[in-house]
Amino acid sequence: MDDFLQQCRAVIGSQYVLIDEADRKPYETEWRQRYRGHCLAVLRPASTTEVADLVKLCRQFKISIVPQGGNSGLVIGSVPDSSGSSVVLSLRRLNKIRAIDTDNNTITVDAGCILNDVQQSADNSQRLFPLSLASEGTCTVGGNLSSNAGGTAVLRYGNARELCLGLEVVNAQGEIWDGLKGLRKDNTGYDLRDLFIGAEGSLGIITAAVMKLYPKPKAIQTALVALSSPEAALELLNLSREGFGPALTGFEFISAICLELVHKHFSDIPLPFSEAYSYYVLLEISDHESESHARQLAENVLGQALEGAIISNAVIADSMTQANNLWKIRENISMAQAAEGKNIKHDISLPSSCIPAFMMMTAQLIVSHFPGCRLICFGHMGDGNLHYNISPPIGVNDQNFISNQEAINRLVHDQVHAYNGSISAEHGIGSLKRKELLRYKSAVELQMMRAIKSALDPDNIMNPGKIL
Amino acid sequence: MDDFLQQCRAVIGSQYVLIDEADRKPYETEWRQRYRGHCLAVLRPASTTEVADLVKLCRQFKISIVPQGGNSGLVIGSVPDSSGSSVVLSLRRLNKIRAIDTDNNTITVDAGCILNDVQQSADNSQRLFPLSLASEGTCTVGGNLSSNAGGTAVLRYGNARELCLGLEVVNAQGEIWDGLKGLRKDNTGYDLRDLFIGAEGSLGIITAAVMKLYPKPKAIQTALVALSSPEAALELLNLSREGFGPALTGFEFISAICLELVHKHFSDIPLPFSEAYSYYVLLEISDHESESHARQLAENVLGQALEGAIISNAVIADSMTQANNLWKIRENISMAQAAEGKNIKHDISLPSSCIPAFMMMTAQLIVSHFPGCRLICFGHMGDGNLHYNISPPIGVNDQNFISNQEAINRLVHDQVHAYNGSISAEHGIGSLKRKELLRYKSAVELQMMRAIKSALDPDNIMNPGKIL
Repeated sequence: MDDFLQQCRAVIGSQYVLIDEADRKPYETEWRQRYRGHCLAVLRPASTTEVADLVKLCRQFKISIVPQGGNSGLVIGSVPDSSGSSVVLSLRRLNKIRAIDTDNNTITVDAGCILNDVQQSADNSQRLFPLSLASEGTCTVGGNLSSNAGGTAVLRYGNARELCLGLEVVNAQGEIWDGLKGLRKDNTGYDLRDLFIGAEGSLGIITAAVMKLYPKPKAIQTALVALSSPEAALELLNLSREGFGPALTGFEFISAICLELVHKHFSDIPLPFSEAYSYYVLLEISDHESESHARQLAENVLGQALEGAIISNAVIADSMTQANNLWKIRENISMAQAAEGKNIKHDISLPSSCIPAFMMMTAQLIVSHFPGCRLICFGHMGDGNLHYNISPPIGVNDQNFISNQEAINRLVHDQVHAYNGSISAEHGIGSLKRKELLRYKSAVELQMMRAIKSALDPDNIMNPGKIL
Repeated sequence: MDDFLQQCRAVIGSQYVLIDEADRKPYETEWRQRYRGHCLAVLRPASTTEVADLVKLCRQFKISIVPQGGNSGLVIGSVPDSSGSSVVLSLRRLNKIRAIDTDNNTITVDAGCILNDVQQSADNSQRLFPLSLASEGTCTVGGNLSSNAGGTAVLRYGNARELCLGLEVVNAQGEIWDGLKGLRKDNTGYDLRDLFIGAEGSLGIITAAVMKLYPKPKAIQTALVALSSPEAALELLNLSREGFGPALTGFEFISAICLELVHKHFSDIPLPFSEAYSYYVLLEISDHESESHARQLAENVLGQALEGAIISNAVIADSMTQANNLWKIRENISMAQAAEGKNIKHDISLPSSCIPAFMMMTAQLIVSHFPGCRLICFGHMGDGNLHYNISPPIGVNDQNFISNQEAINRLVHDQVHAYNGSISAEHGIGSLKRKELLRYKSAVELQMMRAIKSALDPDNIMNPGKIL
């Protein structure tokens, strides 16, 4: 090992090979503190060539590698296991914006760039980089790509995968693949790009990417509507798709209890309606004409929805402050729920058409098996993605409740599976959902995934124990 | 072999195992008559199970398989080689629309469905299936996916890849992978879907797919503008992206010679302008409000372009007939060019920002090496995709000219490569561009592609000799 570490130091400099316990700790600890692993060392290269040289060394010494970006993932995918035999390879020092091409609408960035910095760079060039998620101040583009991050603008712009045109990757052999093309069309062989995207660092290390940019919309219009059922929400989704077309950039479902919890724990956020309703949808449209056109469009479509009795009430934000307050309801649901105590989370997706039936059936099952449990259901309904979380009955001890995790997971995921949905819509698998993956994926699919893993990483050094 | 054919007959019935020369011929012949191969037999299964059983038999008897859809590809990818040792597996009898889910905006189709039938089914359900290309009356969805087809609406809706949510595939082991999920978000393991898409049948056989549908726009507005340079076209593209946002669904570049040839060979198509200009762009916008809104929007943005002297003239279609006539110019360029005699074609893509420089540099090189040659340049400029074709000087014998093919390819493709473009934007590789692929792809990328091929098709029975 000394020999290995010595050679690592020769590649990247002693100060970037962290072996002291205190230095390693933040890289070994999952940010929600649910897990801490141990590694041999944390390696902090500054360039793609250094990454490649380190991978070659790891391969030579048969040391496995846990690639890490902002370490803000939700599935324990970027921290080492407890063996202390692997290295964490942090990409954070690869943090240059390499190029912005406003005529091609692309930005080329190092993998370690913080998402927020990429958004800012685009904005400075009068362009929109639409990927946006809660952790954007700490997560990196490399991590976003490795986990195929979703967020709040998927309905219109797609996941991280759809925003990426080209990659630079250091593969498990320590070779550099320069696939940094900024092309919208390129049919020259197998789609390696999309194979590395979403592979959670288990096939190779993404070191840079060419991402799509968009013209900035001239106006954003936000509205909150109240409705009486998930069926009505689905009807509104279809009406919105027709009426707004691609201007529809957000469609977030919020059940009554979410609004109540936000109101309880964040009383400074104003309540949008004087009465309470059963369900709400937060809508956002992005317009390329003007503020007034956006408002007119929102009034037309929501007016139709009111007339057709699809919705019960609506607030259209008439200032940036009001729009922000409406978004604050959505953004503070997780925090409000955390303030109520522990809960059991599921990040699921379904065909939109199945959401009402899924919600009814699953709620019935939960209530009959775990009486008094509270369903905190909200999420990106426009993408079929629900955060389907379950809080204990009022007064029940958190710890006792959490002991039901496996049984509740089974119930929820079995339902998701029955409706041909996904048990991980946007968070990935990591080590947290590995067993669930093995349970729900077909043998054929698992076998093809394993064949690809062996083909690209025959020594199994890339993030072992994650996904497969 | 008799044993093999006998077992094939037992699986799909004697009438669907074609061995007579006359029966095989249409399956062995490339539709542009540039190539005819030979096969042992043409197999015409009717279901996914039959496909799987046939693949198992082929594997057992070590017989390679050439999957075939509508056989309308452009790179000799769906016909057998001359050895007579492989079978053509035609997917055409798998032609059922399995389901339309208007609430989820998805359509599930067999791979052998004709593209036009899928468009029609969507339309009957008040939905748009946006994939559209010249061969839509004969090509199949399986072929579209296997070649990641492009077409005229990529700017807004993406290639076939972006339109696909899930696949059913028979892999090289003859196992059926059911990946027919209609989900917008699903981060559960490696992206097998995108690996099979664009693999041209060399990794497995796509037997069915879930494709995205969209609400039908309320109005389509078409315009033709005249401009003086490729730089101006690029400026117009950016202005259009900003002003139209995602309403911009078509941006087709047409150089003066294209319009002249169409006028010469199809004199019934009206000329849009009384004067001649150097370049033209055909614009299309899709609007979710109304005819009048679409027209107003087009007038605003093109008015701005005229004021800013980005364009020299513009015609905005004020009837469906006029719009169709404008599109006819674009659609008849290939035919008009063919009427002039043989030419050397290139289907390339570039970062949009490089298009003006590429055009200038490449034209200079062509003219200096092959004096008098005519550059017929047109295409989907909004996607960076140009059809960059070269016709002989007037009066030069076709056959003499075609002997320059290799030298001209080298010149054009070297330029494309220098600008970080693609030598096959939307047509794929097949056997036609295999050597070009080997020349321009890096060793690292080729080696990863080969590793994947060996992992998923260890016996090399799936469309051998194509791509790699």
